Amino acid sequence: MSLKKELVEMGAKARLAGRKLARLDSNIKVGALLKMADAIEAAKDKLQAANAIDLAAAKENGLTAAMIDRLTLSDAVVAQMADGIREVAAQDDPVGEVTKMWKRPNGLLIGKKRIPLGVIGIIYESRPNVTADAAALCLKAGNATILRGGKEAINSNRAIAEVLTGAAAEAGVPEGAIQVVGVTDRDAVVEMLKLEEYIDLIIPRGGEGLIRFVSENSRIPVVKHYKGVCHVFIDASADLDMAERIAINAKVQRPGVCNSMETLLVHADLATTFLPDIIGKLKAEGVEVRGCRRTAAIVPDVVPATEEDWDTEYVDLILSVRVVDSLDEAIDHIDRWSSLHTESIVTESYENAQRFLEEVGSSTVMVNASTRFSDGQQFGLGAEIGISTTKIHSFGPMGAEDLTTTKFIVYGNGQIRE
Amino acid sequence: MSLKKELVEMGAKARLAGRKLARLDSNIKVGALLKMADAIEAAKDKLQAANAIDLAAAKENGLTAAMIDRLTLSDAVVAQMADGIREVAAQDDPVGEVTKMWKRPNGLLIGKKRIPLGVIGIIYESRPNVTADAAALCLKAGNATILRGGKEAINSNRAIAEVLTGAAAEAGVPEGAIQVVGVTDRDAVVEMLKLEEYIDLIIPRGGEGLIRFVSENSRIPVVKHYKGVCHVFIDASADLDMAERIAINAKVQRPGVCNSMETLLVHADLATTFLPDIIGKLKAEGVEVRGCRRTAAIVPDVVPATEEDWDTEYVDLILSVRVVDSLDEAIDHIDRWSSLHTESIVTESYENAQRFLEEVGSSTVMVNASTRFSDGQQFGLGAEIGISTTKIHSFGPMGAEDLTTTKFIVYGNGQIRE
Repeated sequence: MSLKKELVEMGAKARLAGRKLARLDSNIKVGALLKMADAIEAAKDKLQAANAIDLAAAKENGLTAAMIDRLTLSDAVVAQMADGIREVAAQDDPVGEVTKMWKRPNGLLIGKKRIPLGVIGIIYESRPNVTADAAALCLKAGNATILRGGKEAINSNRAIAEVLTGAAAEAGVPEGAIQVVGVTDRDAVVEMLKLEEYIDLIIPRGGEGLIRFVSENSRIPVVKHYKGVCHVFIDASADLDMAERIAINAKVQRPGVCNSMETLLVHADLATTFLPDIIGKLKAEGVEVRGCRRTAAIVPDVVPATEEDWDTEYVDLILSVRVVDSLDEAIDHIDRWSSLHTESIVTESYENAQRFLEEVGSSTVMVNASTRFSDGQQFGLGAEIGISTTKIHSFGPMGAEDLTTTKFIVYGNGQIRE
Repeated sequence: MSLKKELVEMGAKARLAGRKLARLDSNIKVGALLKMADAIEAAKDKLQAANAIDLAAAKENGLTAAMIDRLTLSDAVVAQMADGIREVAAQDDPVGEVTKMWKRPNGLLIGKKRIPLGVIGIIYESRPNVTADAAALCLKAGNATILRGGKEAINSNRAIAEVLTGAAAEAGVPEGAIQVVGVTDRDAVVEMLKLEEYIDLIIPRGGEGLIRFVSENSRIPVVKHYKGVCHVFIDASADLDMAERIAINAKVQRPGVCNSMETLLVHADLATTFLPDIIGKLKAEGVEVRGCRRTAAIVPDVVPATEEDWDTEYVDLILSVRVVDSLDEAIDHIDRWSSLHTESIVTESYENAQRFLEEVGSSTVMVNASTRFSDGQQFGLGAEIGISTTKIHSFGPMGAEDLTTTKFIVYGNGQIRE
């Protein structure tokens, strides 16, 4: 069977399953998710055996230690997958909620009711646990899923999907609700991205290269998550202890993720007191600090920052620092360089806090909190399917509700249009 | 200046204007809209003079009467443009609304706040009044707009845009908020669709060909409105007077628009009583009826319907009719052939009404009302930028609120992540 035909068949099967899923009782979905979580735990040995094949190939192919780490289904990762599915099961079902309802002068009662999107395609790289997370969230929101993971993880992904679909089918989930694309070359991605008749939304999860490739080749809408160049601005009125605590947490608590801080902006009024202290502490934590000219004038032994630094997601223990003269200058810097992910102000000024929340256009804007909280789970959305940095459909951390849309429902009693 | 460069400059100007518009006071936007409405009325002669050039060219180029009708800026159309802008002015400002807010166990207060999308590109065909409607709605929602109308209307579009931007600027709207692409060949559309750095959303308004072209060539998200193959299902328990009133209204009140009925489904239990009567009345209104085998067995002089009829948006006084044995069969027919626009059931059964609303997946689902109500203005959304038949971002009639997104705002008091 040709690749194209194979994918069209998967698409048609998913579309059909999506129609049935949209009408599936909430209880059946919850029951299926709980069974899926149990099945993942029970199949630990089988999953790890499949994973061992991928790991052996990865070592042979000289993958980096970080990639091998992401690929590994340790006991802890298997337990996290199961717990993640249980958390999704415990969330409220977003489907069926009537978000608004109003009456028109002619008596028509018009409401907006939440419904599933239909079929969601997930294209991801080397983390096989995405298979379970994504399948669970999509099922919760009543969607069919087509998963296409990286070739490094194909044996692991297949094994996870087999366990999940088996458990889901036993619990009454229609066939075709969760499918994995078995072909691992890029042609399969290209063909998948042409299935606009069958797939409603594509979510790529991985590096910037993957996301650009998907977004340039897709006829299907794509929710994008490019990068996180997150800023923390220490305002003139900041509580310096709090500022220090937040800046250190935002940079070092987990530097390799998208919601860690990459640029620290400091108001000139407190630069001479604050900068030597914070830069000393950051260096003690192993952070390389790259400072603007004014930063270097205060703390001479920083690396000089270039314009490129303002645009860089280090995802590492590196930080750029800039001194600004005002809130306006801080907002201008963020306007110019932000990736629309997360920005935070540390301030005791009511007015500046409100202005920052109002005027900064990123998907998450915070006052007196670490950027590290910008995450679906931390926000209470349950699990997270990704963080959108483009504004269409969803903006910011996305949970199950973001995998739905609304339809209009209209109750009449014989109205016709004049 | 090259076409590409010209469009990039428009994009950059719009992006900058968008940032300013996002922070613009509601009162300034309302004042600007009212000034724009007055200016359109005051410039009637000027607009009609520009329109006369387009009309003369249209006649020379042999455009159809229908196209010339859509192109004409009659006194009534000018008055409608002004009134439409005033209606948009009178609506609530969607920007700034906090749609939800909740507290996390760690004390973080997290909300979702409505913000503009940024820059919206409208690509449309021969109706110059779209220029005013779209510019007004985008401005209301705090967005900059780049308008690219059809070449048949270029003089009219330019004149309208000039009047609107003049009035808007006087009222304090930033430069670049409303721009018209002056180049009328298709290359300009192709270049515009590459401006993903500057334009957040593309809305094409026109025939299926335009929409397919835009959607296949765009790197920017597109909200699509393909076609309206709307169904009315007359259930076994229907009040026959109401059924007749709704069916006739849905077909003949304005057959040339997307929310008119194209297929009538009739429950077998009442087919022999209902069909002769309704088909006779529809014929008296000039409707050509194309019936299924069972319809033809009851009313012999109908045109036999083929499978193609179930898939056709006639936008004309033609109707396909099919007899079905049950609500399930009606829903299956709609599942198979619907364009996801609007479907209505006529029924006195509480259970069937609720099942139809629940199980039919179109963007608007109605009970006991004419499909002709499926429209932003009729639904009380104010003016309408279009009707989305795809589920991403918006589904169904779109008003000013659909030209916004939400960002997360987070109020903390020093929280860091453990």
